[in-house]
Formats: sequence, structure tokens, C-alpha cells
Amino acid sequence: MRYEEMTIEGRNAVMEAFRSGKTIDRLYVLKGCQDGPVNSILREARKGNVLTDFVKKERLDQMSKTGKHQGVIALAAAYEYAEVEDILKLAEEKGEPPFLILLDNIEDPHNLGAIIRTANLAGAHGVIIPKRRAAGLTATVAKASAGALNYTPVAKVTNLGATIEALKEKGLWFVCADMDGTVMYSLDLKGPIGLVIGNEGEGVSRLVKEKCDFTAAIPVKGEIDSLNASVAAGVLAYEIVRQRMG
Amino acid sequence: MRYEEMTIEGRNAVMEAFRSGKTIDRLYVLKGCQDGPVNSILREARKGNVLTDFVKKERLDQMSKTGKHQGVIALAAAYEYAEVEDILKLAEEKGEPPFLILLDNIEDPHNLGAIIRTANLAGAHGVIIPKRRAAGLTATVAKASAGALNYTPVAKVTNLGATIEALKEKGLWFVCADMDGTVMYSLDLKGPIGLVIGNEGEGVSRLVKEKCDFTAAIPVKGEIDSLNASVAAGVLAYEIVRQRMG
Repeated sequence: MRYEEMTIEGRNAVMEAFRSGKTIDRLYVLKGCQDGPVNSILREARKGNVLTDFVKKERLDQMSKTGKHQGVIALAAAYEYAEVEDILKLAEEKGEPPFLILLDNIEDPHNLGAIIRTANLAGAHGVIIPKRRAAGLTATVAKASAGALNYTPVAKVTNLGATIEALKEKGLWFVCADMDGTVMYSLDLKGPIGLVIGNEGEGVSRLVKEKCDFTAAIPVKGEIDSLNASVAAGVLAYEIVRQRMG
Repeated sequence: MRYEEMTIEGRNAVMEAFRSGKTIDRLYVLKGCQDGPVNSILREARKGNVLTDFVKKERLDQMSKTGKHQGVIALAAAYEYAEVEDILKLAEEKGEPPFLILLDNIEDPHNLGAIIRTANLAGAHGVIIPKRRAAGLTATVAKASAGALNYTPVAKVTNLGATIEALKEKGLWFVCADMDGTVMYSLDLKGPIGLVIGNEGEGVSRLVKEKCDFTAAIPVKGEIDSLNASVAAGVLAYEIVRQRMG
């Protein structure tokens, strides 16, 4: 298991966790506690939309592993991110052309989890997410991935565009999902490939889209705009599976 | 718009709504109110897992449209279900072989909404859900459907197996999703078809599965068990789209 929950205890440790950008899933604060350090922590929690519970001292004592919680305990996701290199190595070990899924700012943790689950089943070698703005690997993501987070490596990169450039030099082709693209059935998706899925509301950002070699469209026959992001990722990933099997 | 939210006010009306099996999305009860009728309503709410808020009188007065809430207001989904016949008529009007999606007890409203969204975009003529055990058309479903609930008819039937039998007599074929089936690429999914998607945990129930003509499997290459139900529905629905386009 590469994923586990971790408790962080005490005012300094919790504040430090927030400052370093660690993914905090839940915060427990002693009821009635309102001094300066605690208020700073609460401010960070609000900023990051972290679920906060105000609980009795007995509850904190029970949760505490160090016995020194000082009225504050945070639950953090302890997930070991992979490197992009690890993902390529996995493809090499399996003797398969690399198949990566890149997520351009997926915000909903259920979607992120469902996509990691799809990546695992479709035989993708890994998932790449950007450091900023996107959903991180929280407990909700782990649950929605139905265990896939323990098998499918997820790498976090600073700049998705730069990562695409670097991977192109290693021979990968990039296809991004967009309703305005070429119908996916008429594209050749067999080689070493990176599938780029956009944000729920805005789709793939212009800068990332410009780096891609193809734009693949899922044919639409209905009245509404677009599929749910994780469904779109599934439909495209399986078109790649179909072509690779053929 | 076939979907809208509706408020039900007063003790008798709310109790009656629960008794008749109407889908209540949310219940508002006057804080501190604990008499017999209110307790009966709260019991029904707990039974149905209905989100309940205890609020001040001013809040209820504000929400009330009749001015006679008696301390209880329920929010209900007012959705006009279609008949199975309407779905077949829609296919006929479009001059297409019927394409239906049948859901064998999908429980998660996000999945139900995402599947209705997929049905719309994949050109399915309607969705059929069973009356019992499954998620109903709540506000959450409407939101997750991204507007598709206004275009794609949803019919509710007492017995999914009996509906399948009746539709078979009208020339439809039924394919159910199951990991043990034939790989979907080697099945002929072009004719008048009903795609059956199972429950999130248990898959398609035995009785329903026995009524189906084929069992279609999505090929899996990973370590975990199965795709998210709405992703699986999307992948299978689009295999039908692909075959129909070809």
C-alpha cells in the first residue's frame, strides 16, 4: 500500500503542514479554543476548504498518538507520488508502448479517483497531474479509485506543458480530448501515447492544447454539451485499448 | 424543463409525501419541536436517509409559500417520469433502432446523473430504472445530469425483468455488462438494443442477467476489479455508438 492516512498533531506541526502545501483531509480543533495560533490554523483551513470539526478534549486525547496535540490534530493524506520516469519504466518492464493519462486540472476528487481507477483497468502505465489548482490525492480520491491508487503510479508535475514537451522528445504522441477535434475512431492511437483530459468546466487549457499532436472528439448526438470528465476519460482510454488490441 | 424543485408544507402533507414514496431531497424542521407527528416525520426521514436541518421559525417562514408550515417543510423532486412507450416513440420519430439504457439498482445519485448525461450524448432514446431500491430523480441527480434530465426521458418500472420480456417481444435485444462476458468488440451491438448496467457493488442481478441475450465484457488489464458504474456505462454505450456509425 502506497497510500495511508496520517495524523499531524500540535500547533506548529499542523501550521507547518498547511504552509508546505500538504493535503489535509480533515482538521480537529478543541472546542472553544480561540487563541492566535489556532485562529491562524483555522484561517488556513478555510482557505483550503478543509473540513473542520470542533471537538471535546476527550476526543482529541483519544485520537492523539503522541499525547501532545495542544488542541489541534490534522488528518493528512500520506501518498507517495511517483516520478514520470517511474511510469515510463513500468511501460518498459511490461514491454508495452507507454500509455499515460494527463489531467489538466481535474477539480472533483470523485472524478480524479474514478480516472485513476479507469487508468488501472485500461492498462495505462500512470497518471500525471499538475501541482497547482487540481485535486490532490486525498482520502476521497483513494476511496473513489477503488484501490487503484495502490497500483497505478500518479506523478505530480509543476508544468504540464513542459512535461509534454519532455515526453515528446522520448517519442510519445499527445492527444487531447475536445469536442471540436477529429472523431476519435478515425485517429491512429496505437503508438506511445499521452491522453490529456481537461478540467470539468473549461476543458483542456489553451497552452496545453497547443502542445498536443491531435485533438480527439467523442461523437455527440444529444442536446447537452459534454460528458462527465471521468466518463469522457473512460471512453477515450478504451478507444486506445480497442485500437491497441486490434 | 421537466424537472423542478417543489416544497411540501405542513405535518400531514409531509407525512403523506413520505408515505406515498415521493422523493424527498431535504427536510426542514423547527428547532426544539418534538411532538408525536414531528417525531413520526423524523423517523421516516431517518429511514430514507433524508438530510434534515433543524432551523429557526424565521427561516421556515421565509421558505414557506402557504404561510402554514406548522414547523415542517420538505423539498421534493418534481420530475415527470416518462413511460417506456414514450422512449420507443422517440426512437421511431428519429427513424433509429431503439437504444435504451436499463439500470439495475444504481444507488449513487452522481452515477445515475452521469449515466443520464451519457445516455443523452450517446444518442440513447431513454433510461429505465426500477421503482425499488434504486436512486430516484433527486436534485443531486438533476445536477449531475448536467441538464440531460430535461431531454432524455427516464421511465420507472416495477419489474425490470418483466419490462425486458415485454421489450424483447417488440424486437429488442438485451446486453448486460459483466466482467465474465464476451469482449464487447466481438459482439454485434447494431440492432434495436437495451444495455443493462448493474448495481455499483453487486453488478447485474441474476434474475435480470438471465433475461439478457448477451453478456458484454469491457476488457480489463489492471489489478483491481471493475470500473466505476457510470464509466462502465459510458464505455459500453460508446461501443454501441461506434458500431452503429460503422
